Amino acid sequence: MARSISHGECVLIIAFHRMSTHRVAPSRDLRHFLGRMCFSDQLAAYHGLIEQGLDKHLPASTTRPARMHEAMRYAIEGGGKRLRPMLLLATAELFGADGDSALPAAVAIECVHTYSLVHDDLPCMDNDDLRRGRATTHKAFDEATALLTGDALLTHAFALLATAYAAQPALAHSLIQELAATAGSQHLIGGQMEDLLAEKNSNATTDDLEFIHLNKTAAMIETSLVLGGLVGGADETHCATLRTVGRHLGLTFQIIDDILDATADTETLGKTAGKDAAIDKTTYVKLHGIDKAQQIAAQHTQSAIDSLQSLSGDTTFLVALTNAMTKRAN
Amino acid sequence: MARSISHGECVLIIAFHRMSTHRVAPSRDLRHFLGRMCFSDQLAAYHGLIEQGLDKHLPASTTRPARMHEAMRYAIEGGGKRLRPMLLLATAELFGADGDSALPAAVAIECVHTYSLVHDDLPCMDNDDLRRGRATTHKAFDEATALLTGDALLTHAFALLATAYAAQPALAHSLIQELAATAGSQHLIGGQMEDLLAEKNSNATTDDLEFIHLNKTAAMIETSLVLGGLVGGADETHCATLRTVGRHLGLTFQIIDDILDATADTETLGKTAGKDAAIDKTTYVKLHGIDKAQQIAAQHTQSAIDSLQSLSGDTTFLVALTNAMTKRAN
Repeated sequence: MARSISHGECVLIIAFHRMSTHRVAPSRDLRHFLGRMCFSDQLAAYHGLIEQGLDKHLPASTTRPARMHEAMRYAIEGGGKRLRPMLLLATAELFGADGDSALPAAVAIECVHTYSLVHDDLPCMDNDDLRRGRATTHKAFDEATALLTGDALLTHAFALLATAYAAQPALAHSLIQELAATAGSQHLIGGQMEDLLAEKNSNATTDDLEFIHLNKTAAMIETSLVLGGLVGGADETHCATLRTVGRHLGLTFQIIDDILDATADTETLGKTAGKDAAIDKTTYVKLHGIDKAQQIAAQHTQSAIDSLQSLSGDTTFLVALTNAMTKRAN
Repeated sequence: MARSISHGECVLIIAFHRMSTHRVAPSRDLRHFLGRMCFSDQLAAYHGLIEQGLDKHLPASTTRPARMHEAMRYAIEGGGKRLRPMLLLATAELFGADGDSALPAAVAIECVHTYSLVHDDLPCMDNDDLRRGRATTHKAFDEATALLTGDALLTHAFALLATAYAAQPALAHSLIQELAATAGSQHLIGGQMEDLLAEKNSNATTDDLEFIHLNKTAAMIETSLVLGGLVGGADETHCATLRTVGRHLGLTFQIIDDILDATADTETLGKTAGKDAAIDKTTYVKLHGIDKAQQIAAQHTQSAIDSLQSLSGDTTFLVALTNAMTKRAN
């Protein structure tokens, strides 16, 4: 795995990353590039591990019925930031687990995330043709196949956790309990439900927005960190801290999503831009404006970092990742 | 719980049940009614327990978001035979568990079964307006809500198993591993996928049909018995026998489904009748004709009963239920 990086390097990385989003003027300091390479190496190493894990822990595309398994792989192999599995792996390492032992859990969380995107893109939901820069699953296959593909990815997440951690049934049980609660009707799916309702209600409130973002987005990010902690043997106190980190990081992530939808183009995003304004959707940008939304995101980022740094161990990568997520361009 | 019934009574029950389907002429023997009452009492007792369990183990309809939880309850409270949870409870009792300890697992399997129906009824799948005698979930609510409701019921099954059996993590793990494998892309969902493909292929073969029925229907019935066995502490040998029973019972159930689709009316079925012939779907009836299909069903029924009776303990109710399923009218 890539070496860890210093706090000073992180600052540079962040600065470079901000440059790359074209929101600040480039500096001539070459250390930016050194910093960027270090972080990029780490990101690339995690990415590589995650892609290998996805390939290893999903059924082969030739498994009967082949169309089903081809579609599962199409949906999940479309790329993406892999933020959730990356947070999971880095947190597991922070608590002393190696990447291999955490990999099935990382694949499981990416399966749940991807299923939610596949269903969210369906015509009866967001009706989107583009995801991760290519045709959504229902456009590449058909609606029925995409529906079943989402179902299959969700189910596979639980099957994988149960199988891969079978030698440690108590750990398997904890991982499944955490993931099932978060993916359920009171968190991930509940957030999606309220998101749909809010689209039809131009008077949605700050409270509605907070419910949606805490449950649709932040809960899965919280759980990514907690699952990593559980694999690494984190105790309840540590898991509570990881939840706090995840909640703040998740809110930041969603606010930035809202800002990018309003400011970035479709090609950069890899998904359709400007959708929120087109339907007058209640977002952080609509409620607060871009500048204020950015301030709120920065506050959540700082809170996430403060909580992270209260943990013992080397949190440098997680801090850098948190900052990078804040400054991301897509 | 209702008392068990004798083999002789079972024969009467079956005879009465056949009468009730109007396929055979009624007999004047009053013992039919006695037999019917006994079995009916047992069925009613299980039904009552299952309905209580569903009410207890699903989130209240007022839980935020209320629309989500109302739809979950609408979908699952629509009635139905409750075959899968009933098999689970009866099998758990056969192995010495009480109904209360098996109830969360019974609710979990009904959640998975109901989710599969909700998604199967969607316009992009079977596009059906009627289920269990009333409007399908997407007709009563809307497509997006039905999609999320199915997702939520599936996820709830795993959350419930993890929570209700948290004091026995090894049992929770076994139950989840069994259910997740069966509900996944190589069984339940895989069977649905091939079923969809077969609808577009009027040359589907006996092998295709067997894959669909073994995975779309029989696997969940197998797993109902196995989950009951696991709650009751059944060992691997017993679980293997339960699988054999479930496979034969599941195939019988599906063949009867095909026959009823061809012979019964929509009101009796509580779902749209005659759909298979309308689209020239490959079914047991199309491949073999009604008489031969009935013979095949009878053979599977006998094999299921033979395997059941190889188990120690009082299998009378399960035998009667197996026979009743063969003779059912809807």
